Amino acid sequence: MTTVSASPELAEPALLGWLSTMGLDVDYVRAKGITLYRVDGDGTERAVTDLVGGYGSLILGHNHPELVAEAHRLLDADTPVHAQFSRHPYANAVANRLNAILRRELGTAEAFLAIFANTGAEAIEAGVKHAELDRVLRMRAELEAVDAGIAAARTAIDVGARVNPAVLLRLDIDAAAGPVAGFEAVAERVRAYNSEVVARPPLLFALEGSFHGKLMGSVQLTFNEGYRTPFSALGVQSRFLPLNDREALTAATLDAQVALLDVVVRGGLVELAERAAPVVTAVLVEPVQGEGGIRPVSSGYAAGLREACTTLGAPLIVDEIQSGMGRTGAFLASSLSGLRGDYYTLAKSLGGGLAKTSVLLVRESRYRPDFEFLHSSTFAKDGYSCGIALKVLDLLEADDGRVYRVAAERGRRVKEMLSAVRAEFPDVIEEVRGTGLMLGMQFTAQERSSSAVLRENAPLLGYLLAGYLLREHDLRVFPTASNVTTLRFEPSVQITDAEITRLQAGLRAVCALLRAGDGDRLAQL
Amino acid sequence: MTTVSASPELAEPALLGWLSTMGLDVDYVRAKGITLYRVDGDGTERAVTDLVGGYGSLILGHNHPELVAEAHRLLDADTPVHAQFSRHPYANAVANRLNAILRRELGTAEAFLAIFANTGAEAIEAGVKHAELDRVLRMRAELEAVDAGIAAARTAIDVGARVNPAVLLRLDIDAAAGPVAGFEAVAERVRAYNSEVVARPPLLFALEGSFHGKLMGSVQLTFNEGYRTPFSALGVQSRFLPLNDREALTAATLDAQVALLDVVVRGGLVELAERAAPVVTAVLVEPVQGEGGIRPVSSGYAAGLREACTTLGAPLIVDEIQSGMGRTGAFLASSLSGLRGDYYTLAKSLGGGLAKTSVLLVRESRYRPDFEFLHSSTFAKDGYSCGIALKVLDLLEADDGRVYRVAAERGRRVKEMLSAVRAEFPDVIEEVRGTGLMLGMQFTAQERSSSAVLRENAPLLGYLLAGYLLREHDLRVFPTASNVTTLRFEPSVQITDAEITRLQAGLRAVCALLRAGDGDRLAQL
Repeated sequence: MTTVSASPELAEPALLGWLSTMGLDVDYVRAKGITLYRVDGDGTERAVTDLVGGYGSLILGHNHPELVAEAHRLLDADTPVHAQFSRHPYANAVANRLNAILRRELGTAEAFLAIFANTGAEAIEAGVKHAELDRVLRMRAELEAVDAGIAAARTAIDVGARVNPAVLLRLDIDAAAGPVAGFEAVAERVRAYNSEVVARPPLLFALEGSFHGKLMGSVQLTFNEGYRTPFSALGVQSRFLPLNDREALTAATLDAQVALLDVVVRGGLVELAERAAPVVTAVLVEPVQGEGGIRPVSSGYAAGLREACTTLGAPLIVDEIQSGMGRTGAFLASSLSGLRGDYYTLAKSLGGGLAKTSVLLVRESRYRPDFEFLHSSTFAKDGYSCGIALKVLDLLEADDGRVYRVAAERGRRVKEMLSAVRAEFPDVIEEVRGTGLMLGMQFTAQERSSSAVLRENAPLLGYLLAGYLLREHDLRVFPTASNVTTLRFEPSVQITDAEITRLQAGLRAVCALLRAGDGDRLAQL
Repeated sequence: MTTVSASPELAEPALLGWLSTMGLDVDYVRAKGITLYRVDGDGTERAVTDLVGGYGSLILGHNHPELVAEAHRLLDADTPVHAQFSRHPYANAVANRLNAILRRELGTAEAFLAIFANTGAEAIEAGVKHAELDRVLRMRAELEAVDAGIAAARTAIDVGARVNPAVLLRLDIDAAAGPVAGFEAVAERVRAYNSEVVARPPLLFALEGSFHGKLMGSVQLTFNEGYRTPFSALGVQSRFLPLNDREALTAATLDAQVALLDVVVRGGLVELAERAAPVVTAVLVEPVQGEGGIRPVSSGYAAGLREACTTLGAPLIVDEIQSGMGRTGAFLASSLSGLRGDYYTLAKSLGGGLAKTSVLLVRESRYRPDFEFLHSSTFAKDGYSCGIALKVLDLLEADDGRVYRVAAERGRRVKEMLSAVRAEFPDVIEEVRGTGLMLGMQFTAQERSSSAVLRENAPLLGYLLAGYLLREHDLRVFPTASNVTTLRFEPSVQITDAEITRLQAGLRAVCALLRAGDGDRLAQL
């Protein structure tokens, strides 16, 4: 450890400097269950209760003994990690296990095909790529149908049909040119119009407050402007809709209904017709927004999203990367709110806090097998992470889903506590939100606090509170990344009543200091 | 295994079906060193010599005992995997270790800052994002300089300067309007022109034959049209330059020299001036193209790329994901060809074939600390994969870099053998390319073979040969993904003379069958 500490900081030194000003630059040396152990400068070890839980990666806690045992076993068995382009029975076993769970929770008999990746962002990007391939292929089919319509009309013209004069008038084509030339002019206009529609950038809908990753493409699906706008020139722009606002959704849906022109022959007349153009690649939604401040999608909005996607012919991608894997009391958070997607993404806890793995699941009826030949990843589908994921699913499903019940019960208990703290400090706490072990507590804005320290730190309030709770109460919490007045609580299912009580004490102390405007104490000045 | 096999195929069944037609759908159950062990339907186990090596991930072989021991140790120590937003001493240790190696090989005293990710594609995307942030900030600085120039000129106008009449004429501004109005019109035109330049999509240069990943952004940097074009609407388009063609590079560099307009005051006259506009985000290069067919960048072209990037003010991103980590006889393949970049990406073997990790290294003088607050990944910088990476670097650097020397020596030995086979079958083998343990053998096209099977399979020739070598010779080889007449050889350093001799026998058999036009035997019909 000495040599390590003596080295210059070369891995994100600016971030570390900032963490240090917040008192968050601690050195965790060991992790087990809900506890991280930090070592201070003098070598003393302190236990810290982890309410962050790897941003949702630790529903089963740090270094779960059965998962660690499975990791040892996989290593001892010389499990192949790199065996690309071969049979991958473990990946298929994970896919089958996930299918059984999804079919049960979603009440469907339809299969879901699995594309594996390594991180949440990669699964999202695989999903958007799959959706775009699907859109491109659907667009191609529409254009082929138009071509077929034109060919059929041309045949009709040859045997005496003519173009409806109203069509010629509308397209400003000289009727005097004769039926054949007139028709060819119509066909050319139709094709030119369609080409213009095809050339438009595709539409991607996401929600305000969304977080779907930070890679080149996925960062454009993440609402936070600070993360997104410096990179806007690199990827297609998303359209962000206000969460749970059905009117706005209806308006956006209408707006995205674009037609291709077609021709049909009716009663010896060539007429113009329209075909729906697939211009929307996908609609993305988190059942409970994580980084956006722990904000659930309402049941009504869930139904609206389903309807919108059906209208648009676009797949609904349900991002369960943070909310899924049992955290909300069911395997999928969306299964509780009635949200029904065409694609699902899972990551974080799928690797059990040990492995890096993620998966995109696509409903069979919307699946494009060609995608398998276009998309791949050297690290994906490996035996090690699939072995860990299988064990994670075993643990979640054991005893008829005991983990889900525990998550729901522990979640209720934590939420009751948070609500009690809020009842005591309604002036300081704006709202308690969330479900199961995915909870948020929004504090009132401190921009006009009597404390200079609080005013200054208001844009980073949650980090200031995190520093205090870590320092004074040995509690690890963080705000949600895009809503920093909201502290998130995503502990593992191991959380005990005693830990909830300690969290309550810490939060009450925070609230009392905020109420008193004691920013100096919160910031340790 | 029974239950697994009995399950429906839900993880890329189309790919598996195709692998099956090629005889590549084998089930690998164990991996050690250079050997993968397959189990056939009847339960028999067969050893397969792995020349694919995880597409470059296995310079140290499968399940290297010291890496496996380190993995066990990290698990036993309850190493924290999820400890985001804390000190990450192991990540910093990896960064320091990499710095020592890079400085030695590149002969520089400059530090490299490290941004960790999880896969090669993620490291590339982090690099492009960093480069784009840098470009946006440099563009902003240029625009601020123009604003300052305008302000200074305005002050000069106020005290008697006037706009050069030639400028008014050039911009078609009425000189009669008076000096102040005339100047404001000039300022407006300058700003409008600059706004138009700023709004243009940024330029990304990559090389024909390149492979930089398949995520939403990185797939647009990958030359293969089949992989790229279905998704072109999702990300900014790259400009692909022919490899090792300096004239084309010079032309592209000239073409990308775009100016912003500025104003200066000289001798009491406001004149137009130009400032270089940073319109190129980055230039990407693999020192030895992997998927493109094992094609090294020439020393001359390397110098040209350096010059072009200096002219353009754009960073050169050297993608060492496949070529790096010792494979070519040095830690960086680029250090041998004199290629000098501003950013380097590493992945694959960095995780030792066990962990998923990657890193972007950025020269300190081109580093933007702000990036640390914009980019992150839940899974990156974890103690487990950093611990494995540290051990990998230990092993590579041990005995004064013995692994590099072995890679060079074994590589020479394999290449001699490949060249000998080519000398024997010049009608069948077009070329042997590459360096160290990154070698390729290009076969002649079979589109006009006398064998119907070979004609049919010509577009997938390498896979047909791979199926034969696996079936008949227990050798695992694959073609490069974007050049399927080239078989790649990227074995681990463990490859023995006996294995090289077996590979030679297999390749000679392939060549004899190709020469004889015996496609049926190659395809096992």
